[in-house]
Amino acid sequence: MDILEKLEWRYAVKKFDSSRKLTKEQLDRVIAATRLSASAYGLQPYKILVIDNPEIRERLKQASWNQPQITDASQLVVFARYADLKPYHVDDYTNNIAKTRNVNPEDLAGFAGMMKGTVNSLDAQGAAVWTSKQAYLALGTLLTAAAAEGIDACPMEGFNASQYDEILGLKEKGLASVVIAAVGFRAADDQMQHAKKVRKPVNELVEII
Amino acid sequence: MDILEKLEWRYAVKKFDSSRKLTKEQLDRVIAATRLSASAYGLQPYKILVIDNPEIRERLKQASWNQPQITDASQLVVFARYADLKPYHVDDYTNNIAKTRNVNPEDLAGFAGMMKGTVNSLDAQGAAVWTSKQAYLALGTLLTAAAAEGIDACPMEGFNASQYDEILGLKEKGLASVVIAAVGFRAADDQMQHAKKVRKPVNELVEII
Repeated sequence: MDILEKLEWRYAVKKFDSSRKLTKEQLDRVIAATRLSASAYGLQPYKILVIDNPEIRERLKQASWNQPQITDASQLVVFARYADLKPYHVDDYTNNIAKTRNVNPEDLAGFAGMMKGTVNSLDAQGAAVWTSKQAYLALGTLLTAAAAEGIDACPMEGFNASQYDEILGLKEKGLASVVIAAVGFRAADDQMQHAKKVRKPVNELVEII
Repeated sequence: MDILEKLEWRYAVKKFDSSRKLTKEQLDRVIAATRLSASAYGLQPYKILVIDNPEIRERLKQASWNQPQITDASQLVVFARYADLKPYHVDDYTNNIAKTRNVNPEDLAGFAGMMKGTVNSLDAQGAAVWTSKQAYLALGTLLTAAAAEGIDACPMEGFNASQYDEILGLKEKGLASVVIAAVGFRAADDQMQHAKKVRKPVNELVEII
């Protein structure tokens, strides 16, 4: 597996093969890879909602400019940030570190204090931006890992976030939708798979200093 | 190559082996993968600065809480968003599409109009957030692809962005630093490579609907 070949192979699928579903193992692996994404401090201030239900996806499609990928893909992944980032999220995390690494939570007090300093320094808008960035980082991990596995995806910003929050009951869960990605398999007749990939030339995009 | 094994292998390196540099081919491949990252509309509203110069990195280190990764890594990658997103960035992009795919720029007028609608709808703060999100998406691509190649990295938010912009002359270039990643190889005695990876349990992170 050559990661550059895989990244060349991937594209934002416009038309999925609606007859093909990811196997349970494939879906589990996409989720596992996304779970392993880096995030600031390792805090993972979001949830990953995997929407399989056709009726719910039909409603989400209507909140997404009727883009067919929402319903035709195997699943729709919704990245939903913590709507209200709080110091207790830091405590949950340090408890997880203590348990996972078998260390005393008190030994993590310095790290916890630093994280709480960040959390407390952010107003609602600042927290929304910070947690959203972490979701985009995870999206980058998902897209790259899915491509490595030969699984197609289409990342999308074109949806009505407040309608998504309503349909999925996210407000009650303390969450807010950030960005979405349909996962599945490209249709044989999606012409976009044959279009040349457009990227800035390296000498315009990159500067070596 | 198993992408999950690679993602398990990666961690935010605390101590790089300062005697090891990426080969030119390795650096080129990390850059190529990052260039292939998805972005909203494919617009890539950022530049990727690869800092090799030791003196500049010494100054950047002082603007990064003296974190040793800044100078000890093989290179430091700085993601810098367009500081002032403008409709002409859309025109540059559609010209690139037209050239790459050998189509008439006029056939892209609808797409260009949609993108300009987005660009014009964003105030300075909104544009900063939107372009920053795209940089984080590219960072996720970089980290995952580097891991796939057996190349270490440390993503970092702990730096003074305005000092970075000053040191790198980014304002004059119409850019603003967003997030950074050191790339290179872990030191044999970086104890963090042996620490168990801490992630939320799947049943807490993920919800299937």
